[in-house]
Amino acid sequence: MVLKLDKQKVMDPVMNSEEKQTQRLEAFSDGVFAIAITLLILEIKVPGAEELKNEKLGSYLLHQWPKYFAYIFSFGVLGIYWTNHHYLYKLYRRTDHWFNMLNVLFLMTIAFLPFPSAILGEYIHEPEQFGTSVRFYALGIAMPAVVWLASWLYASHNKRLIDHRLSDDFIRLLTRQFILSNLLYLVAILLSFYYPGASLALIIFLNILYILPPKKPIYQ
Amino acid sequence: MVLKLDKQKVMDPVMNSEEKQTQRLEAFSDGVFAIAITLLILEIKVPGAEELKNEKLGSYLLHQWPKYFAYIFSFGVLGIYWTNHHYLYKLYRRTDHWFNMLNVLFLMTIAFLPFPSAILGEYIHEPEQFGTSVRFYALGIAMPAVVWLASWLYASHNKRLIDHRLSDDFIRLLTRQFILSNLLYLVAILLSFYYPGASLALIIFLNILYILPPKKPIYQ
Amino acid sequence: MVLKLDKQKVMDPVMNSEEKQTQRLEAFSDGVFAIAITLLILEIKVPGAEELKNEKLGSYLLHQWPKYFAYIFSFGVLGIYWTNHHYLYKLYRRTDHWFNMLNVLFLMTIAFLPFPSAILGEYIHEPEQFGTSVRFYALGIAMPAVVWLASWLYASHNKRLIDHRLSDDFIRLLTRQFILSNLLYLVAILLSFYYPGASLALIIFLNILYILPPKKPIYQ
Amino acid sequence: MVLKLDKQKVMDPVMNSEEKQTQRLEAFSDGVFAIAITLLILEIKVPGAEELKNEKLGSYLLHQWPKYFAYIFSFGVLGIYWTNHHYLYKLYRRTDHWFNMLNVLFLMTIAFLPFPSAILGEYIHEPEQFGTSVRFYALGIAMPAVVWLASWLYASHNKRLIDHRLSDDFIRLLTRQFILSNLLYLVAILLSFYYPGASLALIIFLNILYILPPKKPIYQ
Repeated sequence: MVLKLDKQKVMDPVMNSEEKQTQRLEAFSDGVFAIAITLLILEIKVPGAEELKNEKLGSYLLHQWPKYFAYIFSFGVLGIYWTNHHYLYKLYRRTDHWFNMLNVLFLMTIAFLPFPSAILGEYIHEPEQFGTSVRFYALGIAMPAVVWLASWLYASHNKRLIDHRLSDDFIRLLTRQFILSNLLYLVAILLSFYYPGASLALIIFLNILYILPPKKPIYQ
Repeated sequence: MVLKLDKQKVMDPVMNSEEKQTQRLEAFSDGVFAIAITLLILEIKVPGAEELKNEKLGSYLLHQWPKYFAYIFSFGVLGIYWTNHHYLYKLYRRTDHWFNMLNVLFLMTIAFLPFPSAILGEYIHEPEQFGTSVRFYALGIAMPAVVWLASWLYASHNKRLIDHRLSDDFIRLLTRQFILSNLLYLVAILLSFYYPGASLALIIFLNILYILPPKKPIYQ
Repeated sequence: MVLKLDKQKVMDPVMNSEEKQTQRLEAFSDGVFAIAITLLILEIKVPGAEELKNEKLGSYLLHQWPKYFAYIFSFGVLGIYWTNHHYLYKLYRRTDHWFNMLNVLFLMTIAFLPFPSAILGEYIHEPEQFGTSVRFYALGIAMPAVVWLASWLYASHNKRLIDHRLSDDFIRLLTRQFILSNLLYLVAILLSFYYPGASLALIIFLNILYILPPKKPIYQ
Repeated sequence: MVLKLDKQKVMDPVMNSEEKQTQRLEAFSDGVFAIAITLLILEIKVPGAEELKNEKLGSYLLHQWPKYFAYIFSFGVLGIYWTNHHYLYKLYRRTDHWFNMLNVLFLMTIAFLPFPSAILGEYIHEPEQFGTSVRFYALGIAMPAVVWLASWLYASHNKRLIDHRLSDDFIRLLTRQFILSNLLYLVAILLSFYYPGASLALIIFLNILYILPPKKPIYQ
């Protein structure tokens, strides 16, 4: 593999280093992550004279707890996705056109997250809308997981883009882990139709699990 | 060429590597792309009590389909432009002042796209405004293509900024491809005056074509 | 340490350089800082016809001084935090999973700052809300300091992530300095219940102190 | 100088390369530039049903020309500042604490620009507010020029941070050029009190001049 890459370098004079292969892809992804995560705060609005007519500023700020919850939780979710992106891309040796496209699709689902997050922050405390807002959030949070799995299957198939020295067992382990993630989000979506509270609890529980360190890569 | 660059390095002690030549330009461009693409979500607003007076949250979210369409399509367009920027800049060996200026102009048209995209998302389903919103979108999406072509003509003329080893046939191929793109966008703009639906279909079709992988660079 | 890292490089073929260890972490943090700091301007709104009914544009712009103050001060605070982030990360040799998570938590508190800043800019000149807005700001500005201290204690404990050659005295000096910072913010929060003006003065004084250059690292 | 730097590298094991010295500073600045420049589009609002009651979408979009002008001009101004930042930082060999602080101050004035730009876009066509909006814009655009000059004087004094091999004549040339810039902006501000139209013309003329390529660095 290393030899093959060196050979490629000779033939393709533009490609200066292996590093370059995923460098701009990572920089662009970091940018989208950083912006999506920082835009979350824009959903918490400064109250005007209208909102403070019947309420003091202090109690208004306290009553914003659903928005703080949505901010903290969605920041956490995006932060964890970023950490995992960071972790996974260290296993990649190169990128290709379709993988770039899958990454654009992945970022599309990441940049969408502030919207369901804002819906949840606005309607979590209204019993009538609670079910819908949880369902929409579950759907929103499941989408990056689906594209994540698709990207991984594409990249790891016959070790197309990943480090050739990674052990097959380790690759299978990650594949199984990403499939399980998708199944659990599917459960959360279905659950949200009947028990939205339990669905939200499952989503939170899942993302607390993801805070645990990922498995160290195992090489052959 | 390589010898010439090495010589330049000796004379100009600040220039440490060829890499540096387009590095900050790419980083800045990536930043603008990442922000423009992530700002698209801000066009989908969270409904207030007013909007939900006669409608449930669930049906409101479903009725937002034109905005989802505009989000997905514009994210795709910007993502494809970024991928192509990424692809083309690998063919460049260096940059100069006027090319920097053309790149600023290009980014100006890229950062403008969220506005026609929001117009389309707001008025695509209103028959009276459909024609105008498609025309404005066609215009908005054609502008980066015009500057893209101008940048390429500037950079590739006498291989001013691009890799000297690229074959002349390959350069001509790209030139023809970029001119064709511009002509097709011109057709879409003209078409939008009479058949806005066909115009939008052409724009969508064009951008689906752009998802296909670009031609591999051919060296002499 | 250097030998150990070199050995690790041999075993782990993906890790090309020590540089890479904190590179994406710093890039991502820079992104969040840059966005949070630039979003501050969005809190200063362009007046519409309504706002200019009883006031000329010139006098309206002058009366916006609390917003300019909040912009300048919060920009300064975030800028200083960024400078210190920049300074401290030069002392780190590597990162690990939990440190990444602490950094996400730190960025969560940084990205939150535009909100209390906007509250302060909106209500600093309303006597009734002055106390609450200062208290909220003191709380908001203390949070990054708490996570900053936690990150440092984690990274410096047994020189887990920092340069092994840093002198113990220097490490203790930084630890004491970060603890003192936290205590002073605690004083500011408590003070805001009784003397909000003095609390704000203390916060401003503290951040003016932080403009002074940090101590040069001392190696053994 | 090079020898001195090499020595410093030996004493300070964290400093891996000269490159690193201004790298994060440039990345952070690029981020703020990229965001400020992309936020400009947010000032052009999508019309709601209210705005389109007495006007068709097409004519509404045409009547937005002051906003397009403000967008294009401010994008140009920020793009040119970025290009010059890019140009000047290639002359710097290293950075220090106070220069970092000056850079934060510079970015503060850059990130502020979208606000006077939005004011200009909103009120350029209202005769009553034209003078004030031009004056505010002139003030806003002069501020980065002031900090730019201060940064340069600090960095170039005794060649504190810049490349030691730059010729004294070249340094004096840049100093004179930056001072002239400041004087012309001062003229524009004063002019805006009596002839706002002439003031705006001067500002536009100045920035068209800045599109010209900067002088090539001259080494001793």
